[in-house]
Amino acid sequence: MSHHTTTQRNTAAIPFDAPKNGWQPLGVNEVALDGGLAGDLQELNTNVMIAHCDSWLEREGWLPNFDAAVAGGLPDERRGREFSDSEIYKLLEAMAWEFGRSHDERLRARFEAVVARVAAAQEADGYLNTMFGRPGQAERWSDLEWGHELYCAGHLMQAAVACGRTMGVDHPLVAVATRVANLVCTEFGQDARGGVGGHPEIEMALVEFSRLTGDSRYLAQARLFVERRGRGVLAEIEFGADYFQDDVPVREADSLRGHAVRAVYLASGAVDLAVEDGDEGLFEAVQHQTLSALAKRTYITGGMGSRQWGEAFGLDFELPPDGAYSETCAGVGSMMLNQRLLMASGDVRHADAVERVFYNVVATSPAADGHGFFYSNTLHQRELGTEVPADKVSPRAAGSLRAPWFAVSCCPSNVARTLASLGAYVASKSGHALQLQQYVNGRISTEVPGVGSVSLRVDTAYPHDGEIVVTVLDAPGAEWTLSMRVPQWATGALLDSGDGPSPVGPGYVHVTKAFTTGDTVQLSLPMRARWTWSDERIDATRGQVAVERGPVVWCLESVDLGSSVNLVAVDTSVPPGDRDGRVSVTAAVEEPPASDWPYASGRTERGAPSAQRVEVPLQPYHSWGNRGATTMRVWMPELGSASGE
Amino acid sequence: MSHHTTTQRNTAAIPFDAPKNGWQPLGVNEVALDGGLAGDLQELNTNVMIAHCDSWLEREGWLPNFDAAVAGGLPDERRGREFSDSEIYKLLEAMAWEFGRSHDERLRARFEAVVARVAAAQEADGYLNTMFGRPGQAERWSDLEWGHELYCAGHLMQAAVACGRTMGVDHPLVAVATRVANLVCTEFGQDARGGVGGHPEIEMALVEFSRLTGDSRYLAQARLFVERRGRGVLAEIEFGADYFQDDVPVREADSLRGHAVRAVYLASGAVDLAVEDGDEGLFEAVQHQTLSALAKRTYITGGMGSRQWGEAFGLDFELPPDGAYSETCAGVGSMMLNQRLLMASGDVRHADAVERVFYNVVATSPAADGHGFFYSNTLHQRELGTEVPADKVSPRAAGSLRAPWFAVSCCPSNVARTLASLGAYVASKSGHALQLQQYVNGRISTEVPGVGSVSLRVDTAYPHDGEIVVTVLDAPGAEWTLSMRVPQWATGALLDSGDGPSPVGPGYVHVTKAFTTGDTVQLSLPMRARWTWSDERIDATRGQVAVERGPVVWCLESVDLGSSVNLVAVDTSVPPGDRDGRVSVTAAVEEPPASDWPYASGRTERGAPSAQRVEVPLQPYHSWGNRGATTMRVWMPELGSASGE
Repeated sequence: MSHHTTTQRNTAAIPFDAPKNGWQPLGVNEVALDGGLAGDLQELNTNVMIAHCDSWLEREGWLPNFDAAVAGGLPDERRGREFSDSEIYKLLEAMAWEFGRSHDERLRARFEAVVARVAAAQEADGYLNTMFGRPGQAERWSDLEWGHELYCAGHLMQAAVACGRTMGVDHPLVAVATRVANLVCTEFGQDARGGVGGHPEIEMALVEFSRLTGDSRYLAQARLFVERRGRGVLAEIEFGADYFQDDVPVREADSLRGHAVRAVYLASGAVDLAVEDGDEGLFEAVQHQTLSALAKRTYITGGMGSRQWGEAFGLDFELPPDGAYSETCAGVGSMMLNQRLLMASGDVRHADAVERVFYNVVATSPAADGHGFFYSNTLHQRELGTEVPADKVSPRAAGSLRAPWFAVSCCPSNVARTLASLGAYVASKSGHALQLQQYVNGRISTEVPGVGSVSLRVDTAYPHDGEIVVTVLDAPGAEWTLSMRVPQWATGALLDSGDGPSPVGPGYVHVTKAFTTGDTVQLSLPMRARWTWSDERIDATRGQVAVERGPVVWCLESVDLGSSVNLVAVDTSVPPGDRDGRVSVTAAVEEPPASDWPYASGRTERGAPSAQRVEVPLQPYHSWGNRGATTMRVWMPELGSASGE
Repeated sequence: MSHHTTTQRNTAAIPFDAPKNGWQPLGVNEVALDGGLAGDLQELNTNVMIAHCDSWLEREGWLPNFDAAVAGGLPDERRGREFSDSEIYKLLEAMAWEFGRSHDERLRARFEAVVARVAAAQEADGYLNTMFGRPGQAERWSDLEWGHELYCAGHLMQAAVACGRTMGVDHPLVAVATRVANLVCTEFGQDARGGVGGHPEIEMALVEFSRLTGDSRYLAQARLFVERRGRGVLAEIEFGADYFQDDVPVREADSLRGHAVRAVYLASGAVDLAVEDGDEGLFEAVQHQTLSALAKRTYITGGMGSRQWGEAFGLDFELPPDGAYSETCAGVGSMMLNQRLLMASGDVRHADAVERVFYNVVATSPAADGHGFFYSNTLHQRELGTEVPADKVSPRAAGSLRAPWFAVSCCPSNVARTLASLGAYVASKSGHALQLQQYVNGRISTEVPGVGSVSLRVDTAYPHDGEIVVTVLDAPGAEWTLSMRVPQWATGALLDSGDGPSPVGPGYVHVTKAFTTGDTVQLSLPMRARWTWSDERIDATRGQVAVERGPVVWCLESVDLGSSVNLVAVDTSVPPGDRDGRVSVTAAVEEPPASDWPYASGRTERGAPSAQRVEVPLQPYHSWGNRGATTMRVWMPELGSASGE
């Protein structure tokens, strides 16, 4: 990790900055995705999801709250929860990254219109929040536990960072955010009231804002927020202090814990701070917490949060498929956190984690048409959901069908800003080197430090297919290193850099030479369906098996099975079928005899030897629930596995 | 079930009345427990728990709220949650049953002192609640969803029923409750505002109060409350309408669902109503719902509620041990519900359910010293709890240590009133017949209809030992039937009614003769530790085994194992040890190798053939957590069971 101690301005179109002696993310304008699962999702975001969010923010009154603030209509006319302002900011951030990529002037015009309405509501001293401070409203900063004022301020700053890096630092939104940031520093500075925000977010926002503006005061304020936390500075709540990570100081904790989104947002901010400060102790603490959570508190999908109560991490190996909360926003946060750790440490485990959570959580949330979202992402849907009307707000979207909008609607705009900035996750660079982290069909053009302009084309149908061909479109004559990630699951991968295929193991493979136009490097990842079992310490999936193919987790839906998935068992003596990516398993469905009491002095056995086997198609987990109400399971009991013999 | 349609006064010392042509519970004054697990618990209640509750109600200000109401100090001086008044009423109920049993005049004096403070707070029109209706408080009946006014009114009536049946119907508390009941009928009658209480309780209270007073108006009001419910009459809440059973009308539902305590309380009231009305359709609907919940939504302990979020039932076969909520109050409610169904139907499954939930949930809640309680009753404690100070209120008691009192402190007083009235669960009677439902050492004296005074002594160390000897102390010369329950688990039971032992199967065994003094009947239930497996549809306990002995579920605690229970596996090829009730299993403990990611393309196997086996003592589940912080599990992985082969 890095050790630079002065804050530097960085105005590249990157969602977050990184240590100067580590890996640098590329700007959203430097990576062009062209189709494939990731590219199609980004295009759906461009064409549908951003407008979907925009329309619901108008319709639900969350954006008009700013107009009401200007017109003096608050608090009577205010609509939405205490954090609704942040949704406008996350949409602005999404729009800014999208503009940085596409330079779409219609999008820019809408962006400016929204910014103007937000800016008009800012008060003379810089305060900007539609929920607090007016007659009839609670006082400013009077509810740090639940009020989300600092959280909203953080998202405003992040929108301003995106805007500053794609439209220029002189944009009015940056000025608005500067006034907010200054007020936060005044109110919560060293000699001020103390306190932290109940929902972390301000920490990474302040670090980024200091990077954008070059003002180290914001970095200092982030440091105060990170270091104050974990000492019982917030009031006691029924969920317990670990809910908002106020139980143990950041640098002393052993694992991620409590509310999952809060946990990964705080950890992301702490990494940003550690990187800026060159604080190895803090960095190592957060990396340890993250790796521990990956090893013991993460679903096979990469999802985090196994308790609906408190939307929280469970304890180690407490990972019930049907109890999985795995909130979409925790998935977004895990991408942010692992990408930050990756850039600073170069540890491939974080890139693997980004890939997994992207394909199996973030990509799972939006409906195929972009007009619905999962808030939580269960791994076992036991009952059919009820239809969610396309024009009705859902509380938080339980059940097997995505909802267009939620009362707590944090996920849609979070997915939108992530997809708009997805290019920044694809590759990174360092001195004389470029790293391909994620494989998407498209083009990459960037300045490689010490080398000059490099332009590559990546041809792949990944993750449908494992062939990845990198062609150099343009490169200076100098020698540099192209590194490509071999995922942990890819046993038997081959690399051909011109001399024929050679076996390569998981981690990064490096090709160093003076690349010239037309040079190709081909990585072949073995893409076939495979069985996956869980660690024996995960009680909830004992005797069950899952199917993965590449980085994608698959699942069984009752719409394919013809009956509830609750009575199925799979025959693992027959390998999973895989005909060009159409995956299937051999399964039996048996209804046990009726019983008055489900506990008895004899083992029950799933699947008698005589049980009829049928071949059943699986679906990629990210696409489940797109064909009407269905039951679904990722983990499938093995035939005969109920018994120990 | 019964078909009498006129309301009759019944002033026997019974916690609830029953159909006249079904089985009648005995009064608390007709059954004397003498030691044993049940008797010792009742004695602990007499000597410690009732005074413990009383002292915390004073100390936390919940009882002084009534004094503040009189002195005009509300709302400023009010303490406790919106339902705190009900805790005073539940304590009064416990005291009344206790007095009915013991005739302790010091207890009576304290009872009268508390009643006087409650009565003084009643308003001129009969309204009595410290939370609503005063200047600065919310209006009366303005929050039916969460306000608990009808719930508190119901508990007041139940206290009055207990008082009326043990101290006489002319007691002032009955008059206080009559004014409350009349006001409820006025406010919520046929032509009034409509509505139901968010937390059921008023339904069974009104039926009982009509039975006590002979006033059928209260029965009619109970009918209105039961029939109104399930039609979306309460406002939408985030938990969903099923949380308070307002999703489906009572007589149309398929299973118990939603908040577990609410569900079993409503069902209990519906049974009372069905019995009074001779409403077979309603009765059968509720019995079906209860039997379905027992077959598919109940833990091996008899505990109900598998979701912490909403304190709710899960779906069928969603029964995670570590996610078990199994609230103590749901256990109390299951006893009430199943005992009501038992009296009306004679179906032994309900008596088995009462036994199971009493020994494994209700008996689990109180600490060995009577000064602490579990609110929820997990089946798998993964981490050591933190000490709960003896003088500090806990939110709801999570963790492995009981707490003296809770912010939501419904359980201590609920346990107290149940233990005080425990005698009423022991036996029942009908024409020319007496049924022994639960086996406790002690004496039973009652009037058997059509026979006359019967007096029995029961000698047993049940459930430690399975020998039960019933000796007739006194009986008229007439012929009558003594029925004894053979629990479902008791394969190989023997009955000796004077002619030597004969095998008897589960259900009721009957001995009919003209009993004379000195006659004995001996039932021998096989009391040895046994393995129990779960239905294959319960994913969360696949590949795991539990140990039961008689009606008692056992568990493994880390204080006996010397290491966390999370790494243990048991060898089921060695039968569980049982040396005069000291139960043990043969187990291996192995720490798997460290891993970055807990999912892999190979099965993990718990317990290599070489793993060292040790014999580990188990503890009765009801006694767990009495020896300091510990981890604990009821379901134990089987050696080798992680694999399907």
